Amino acid sequence: MLTDTKIPFRYIIKQIRFDIARVFLVSVFFQMLKYYFSSYLPPIPVQLPTILGSAISLILAFKINQSYDRWWEARKVWGAIVNDSRSLLIQAKGFMEEDRLISETPQEVLKRIGYRQIAWCYSLGQSLRGLDPVANLQQYISAEELTYLEGHKNKPLALLALHNQELKDLRQQGVFGAYEHVQLATMLVRLCDSMGMAERINSTVFPVTYRLFIHLFIYLFLIVLSLGLVETIGLTEIPILLALASTFFLLEKTAKYLQDPFRNRPTDTPVTVISRTIEINLKQLLDEKQVPKPVAAESFYLM
Amino acid sequence: MLTDTKIPFRYIIKQIRFDIARVFLVSVFFQMLKYYFSSYLPPIPVQLPTILGSAISLILAFKINQSYDRWWEARKVWGAIVNDSRSLLIQAKGFMEEDRLISETPQEVLKRIGYRQIAWCYSLGQSLRGLDPVANLQQYISAEELTYLEGHKNKPLALLALHNQELKDLRQQGVFGAYEHVQLATMLVRLCDSMGMAERINSTVFPVTYRLFIHLFIYLFLIVLSLGLVETIGLTEIPILLALASTFFLLEKTAKYLQDPFRNRPTDTPVTVISRTIEINLKQLLDEKQVPKPVAAESFYLM
Amino acid sequence: MLTDTKIPFRYIIKQIRFDIARVFLVSVFFQMLKYYFSSYLPPIPVQLPTILGSAISLILAFKINQSYDRWWEARKVWGAIVNDSRSLLIQAKGFMEEDRLISETPQEVLKRIGYRQIAWCYSLGQSLRGLDPVANLQQYISAEELTYLEGHKNKPLALLALHNQELKDLRQQGVFGAYEHVQLATMLVRLCDSMGMAERINSTVFPVTYRLFIHLFIYLFLIVLSLGLVETIGLTEIPILLALASTFFLLEKTAKYLQDPFRNRPTDTPVTVISRTIEINLKQLLDEKQVPKPVAAESFYLM
Amino acid sequence: MLTDTKIPFRYIIKQIRFDIARVFLVSVFFQMLKYYFSSYLPPIPVQLPTILGSAISLILAFKINQSYDRWWEARKVWGAIVNDSRSLLIQAKGFMEEDRLISETPQEVLKRIGYRQIAWCYSLGQSLRGLDPVANLQQYISAEELTYLEGHKNKPLALLALHNQELKDLRQQGVFGAYEHVQLATMLVRLCDSMGMAERINSTVFPVTYRLFIHLFIYLFLIVLSLGLVETIGLTEIPILLALASTFFLLEKTAKYLQDPFRNRPTDTPVTVISRTIEINLKQLLDEKQVPKPVAAESFYLM
Amino acid sequence: MLTDTKIPFRYIIKQIRFDIARVFLVSVFFQMLKYYFSSYLPPIPVQLPTILGSAISLILAFKINQSYDRWWEARKVWGAIVNDSRSLLIQAKGFMEEDRLISETPQEVLKRIGYRQIAWCYSLGQSLRGLDPVANLQQYISAEELTYLEGHKNKPLALLALHNQELKDLRQQGVFGAYEHVQLATMLVRLCDSMGMAERINSTVFPVTYRLFIHLFIYLFLIVLSLGLVETIGLTEIPILLALASTFFLLEKTAKYLQDPFRNRPTDTPVTVISRTIEINLKQLLDEKQVPKPVAAESFYLM
Repeated sequence: MLTDTKIPFRYIIKQIRFDIARVFLVSVFFQMLKYYFSSYLPPIPVQLPTILGSAISLILAFKINQSYDRWWEARKVWGAIVNDSRSLLIQAKGFMEEDRLISETPQEVLKRIGYRQIAWCYSLGQSLRGLDPVANLQQYISAEELTYLEGHKNKPLALLALHNQELKDLRQQGVFGAYEHVQLATMLVRLCDSMGMAERINSTVFPVTYRLFIHLFIYLFLIVLSLGLVETIGLTEIPILLALASTFFLLEKTAKYLQDPFRNRPTDTPVTVISRTIEINLKQLLDEKQVPKPVAAESFYLM
Repeated sequence: MLTDTKIPFRYIIKQIRFDIARVFLVSVFFQMLKYYFSSYLPPIPVQLPTILGSAISLILAFKINQSYDRWWEARKVWGAIVNDSRSLLIQAKGFMEEDRLISETPQEVLKRIGYRQIAWCYSLGQSLRGLDPVANLQQYISAEELTYLEGHKNKPLALLALHNQELKDLRQQGVFGAYEHVQLATMLVRLCDSMGMAERINSTVFPVTYRLFIHLFIYLFLIVLSLGLVETIGLTEIPILLALASTFFLLEKTAKYLQDPFRNRPTDTPVTVISRTIEINLKQLLDEKQVPKPVAAESFYLM
Repeated sequence: MLTDTKIPFRYIIKQIRFDIARVFLVSVFFQMLKYYFSSYLPPIPVQLPTILGSAISLILAFKINQSYDRWWEARKVWGAIVNDSRSLLIQAKGFMEEDRLISETPQEVLKRIGYRQIAWCYSLGQSLRGLDPVANLQQYISAEELTYLEGHKNKPLALLALHNQELKDLRQQGVFGAYEHVQLATMLVRLCDSMGMAERINSTVFPVTYRLFIHLFIYLFLIVLSLGLVETIGLTEIPILLALASTFFLLEKTAKYLQDPFRNRPTDTPVTVISRTIEINLKQLLDEKQVPKPVAAESFYLM
Repeated sequence: MLTDTKIPFRYIIKQIRFDIARVFLVSVFFQMLKYYFSSYLPPIPVQLPTILGSAISLILAFKINQSYDRWWEARKVWGAIVNDSRSLLIQAKGFMEEDRLISETPQEVLKRIGYRQIAWCYSLGQSLRGLDPVANLQQYISAEELTYLEGHKNKPLALLALHNQELKDLRQQGVFGAYEHVQLATMLVRLCDSMGMAERINSTVFPVTYRLFIHLFIYLFLIVLSLGLVETIGLTEIPILLALASTFFLLEKTAKYLQDPFRNRPTDTPVTVISRTIEINLKQLLDEKQVPKPVAAESFYLM
Repeated sequence: MLTDTKIPFRYIIKQIRFDIARVFLVSVFFQMLKYYFSSYLPPIPVQLPTILGSAISLILAFKINQSYDRWWEARKVWGAIVNDSRSLLIQAKGFMEEDRLISETPQEVLKRIGYRQIAWCYSLGQSLRGLDPVANLQQYISAEELTYLEGHKNKPLALLALHNQELKDLRQQGVFGAYEHVQLATMLVRLCDSMGMAERINSTVFPVTYRLFIHLFIYLFLIVLSLGLVETIGLTEIPILLALASTFFLLEKTAKYLQDPFRNRPTDTPVTVISRTIEINLKQLLDEKQVPKPVAAESFYLM
């Protein structure tokens, strides 16, 4: 997530440098065309650029809105993960009949559940970004659990299965009643839903044809505009076309980045920051004294 | 679902080839009309194409947005199917009192439920696309169950009925308590909801009159524009009109394809891919060693 | 619901024939005005029609979107009715403790519930459309139940009350446990919600002032445009104004029809078709051999 | 809620009569300015009114959409109240173990609950509109309950508290089981949610600055347009400006009225009509013979 | 929340005073440029400002809509908090088996729960605004509870943990049954969800690049317009440019303020007012005689 601080100019330009280069070549080419063959070029009706312009803004507006919706939905999903992580631990604590525990203290059991939940958050975040989903998990789960994860392709799902097994064992010891057990299992369903939603956003490609059309239309628009501006021949036209085209490409690029919020980019949903917040919250609910610091912003963004 | 790779130019052109041909004929016809009868033609006020143009973009914008919503809703429905399939198996495992099972091992029962759930996903996907809904199901369900399906028109619904019967039998053996049973039945309600939502999207025709109007307006617009461009007579006008019309037809066609995401087309919701993911996830939850590979992309799309 | 087949031209024209006639009269009147009093008419600034045009598209766009939302919501409500009808029967079957039934077979009880549910769907559909809500219900419910309905103004609500009474009786016989009973009662709440939503859409008039303004603006626009086109006097202007006005009136009319999807019109939500689908599904869940055919399309629409 | 019948012209004009008067004064003033000082007035670039015009439509479109959403949400909330009122009574009837009642007949208890629910609806409607929230309640609740209400500022909330107490008493007599009691309490939560939503819509002022800007822009637009129309000096200009301005003010006013649907105005959500419908439905569910008539429309609207 | 009263002109101007100053400098600079170097300046094609203008309104419209959604969502979250606070207390009262209480009266227990809930609301509001989250809490919770809060970073979460512990203790005394306990715990989950949603809105920065682009485009637009208005040189141009630019900046600023509704600004969601309403409602539900007054508006806004 980009923060409210100054965004480096370099960062913005870097995103559209290839498009700008291509626009520059196109402008120069049509400039030369007009210079040498102006008498052969057809007159362009004035409505044409306007119509193309409105077609471009039509699809751009659509794309900006829908990509924002994806980005905001991704954020909502991770907001729900925060809430459900906290509620899972609170409910486990509230529903536990401590005197039914045989070999462990309540605190140990809750800590294992809470830590596994922290592990799940980090693991899901890493896995969505295509990074190593078991990195650093050894701090939060036992060696046997890590071994169990090895056999699974979907690590966060395997962690939910471990949660499920733990709840079942506690239910069989009578630590949770039937009704409380079902309620806690419902929290796992909610976590499973959030995981699936994030995976859906991550694996669903935004209809690519729209992107193709935007690029097509922008180039068409530039050509038509260049041919239409018969009176202004010369170097002045090139910066004008560049400025206009950059406008459209910047908007399109921003939309594209919002669309895919789990790509390990500065515009990502800040899953590491959120996971750390969850870690702090859960550790405090476990009455631990040592809690980590929130993740600090890296220059102009939070990951 | 189209993937992020290069989409063949042929694929795009193929979709609007008839429209382009028709536009070509219209342009040529009006060109000749202007050539031979220019003095009889009325002057077209300059506002007319602009007003028609804004009417077109009005309905196009509406259609693009609503078709995207249908497409995204279809994807959400299948995302919910992924989540509920996983949760069904996780909950069945978590709620099962193993020592109440008489003639079977817990593993056998869970495998039957999990495999039937995989069958349900494939069957629903096939059935939505109008393909054979029992293709390959013999890998996942028993011969008797296949026979039971034969008598039913709605195969996925029949599979849910089998799920329901199984849960009832297990409840009567005491494998699930009353409360756990109701909870699992709720998962079936959720699956039934998702199935009904996908069927709704599939069977509801987008208001056809809007589509009709778009085509009507585009042709009206072309005629008016052609008559309005008095000064540009000749071959130059034809590519201009073709380019403009293709723009609108391409947008309309893309919207039309997104609207109906279960038509066995490259732009479909990738139900086979998703069903395979579910198969992999469920088999891993069943601790099976052999899991199939994810479906690979076919050139530029995933089914 | 209009189907994908060719819509008769007559059907479309019929909807706006009065508007076209009125526009024709207005055009002719202003034509004559311009012919006889052209020197007395004020010059119309060119911005005026454009500003009125954008005001029209502003409200038209708003109306098209909101009416589509109503139409889609109505369809969703009936989709939910499909799902809940199936789930009600599936759950009743799954939760029933058959050996607690005294005088009836499980099959008889389920059939009565299933058939009453079918009756509820048909009755709700008829009642929303302002048709006879007890037409043909004698096939599905007993004579006493029909008599009970007579005393009620809201027939579908009375059918839900009968469902409720039946579930209560079964609960008292111990056929359903307390927990299962509550779960089934929740399905009735969902059906009651869907019924109320459909009634809400049906009884809520879309803000009529917007409709009034659209008509007002279209006529203002025509007058202003007619006065503004000083150079084109004569018969050519009339078809141009007619074409433009028809555009706007067609869009407005389509929106108006989508807005009210239970008016016994071809653009209705196809409640009869959906009710029939539910009948087929429920009868197959009851393992009946005889199921009716789906409702066939009437020329270009499904009811 | 305005009905589909003819809306009196007077009603519409009345809403914008002050704005029209102000616009008239502004037009006359600038007319005179142009008449006496035309040589001192600056030339206005033609882009200026267009840019202001698009800024106006930008905010108007936004306001129309958001105010419709508020209006529709208010209607949905009252739709939910209809559903939950019916469900509450249906469930109370279905869950009641009649033989546990000591001093009362089941019919008496259900009537008390049903009538109190009717009272709640009327009271909420009155309270939202700023009218007397206990008007006519003596028909539906006992004298003691009326006395209890006196001490409370939020009468509908107090009625819910009475509902809650009644359910608790019945639970303690064993008329409702633990599970059924919780289910009925959930219905109270839903009613409490609906009440809170209606209060939220009622107490949240739509961002006033947008309204301010619209008015500001319309006047700016009129001044600029008036100065820009150099060629048309005289009386013709005034009706043109008036027509244009009325357009915008009418749209803004309609939006403003939709925004606040509980202000005792003809455009209100028809809470009295809805409450009467609930009264009819509940009395019929109580098998009463005497039911009131639906509220009739007052000339052109329903309250 | 700004109220419906007159907003001071000063307040509005203050928000954009720096932008206006910058626009003034830019206008003067380009004025002088045109005065001294007019022959060297390139002719600006008339389409350019129009295209930039539509790009600006594209992003402005997007931003206004999305910021309104955030603001409305924040208000909905606090509406849900009102509902759930009331429901929590109503349910606690309804579910309590008073004779199981050993050392306290029911009234004392309910008062403690209700007051802690009031404390939670105030604390959450303060914490969202970055103010002291334990200010004045000593009126509502005991000294030990205040001490417990000290160790926690997230005070409202710690208050929920105290709620949870209280419910658990009461459950162990048998004051709540298993089922009722789970139901009350669900209310805590809902409160935890609302808290997380408000935190999400508060901590998620709206995509900053869009804001950057709007500013960029407005300045580009001003430069281009200034260069394009060749015929109007002189002091007249400056107020025109200022008026136009202020329009856009005011819209952008209003959107920015709506976006972040917990910043201790007049445009905030009025969390103090809402918390006070909750306090009044809960105290009346506890049958207290002394209830505080609603928060009064401060000149033109409510906090």
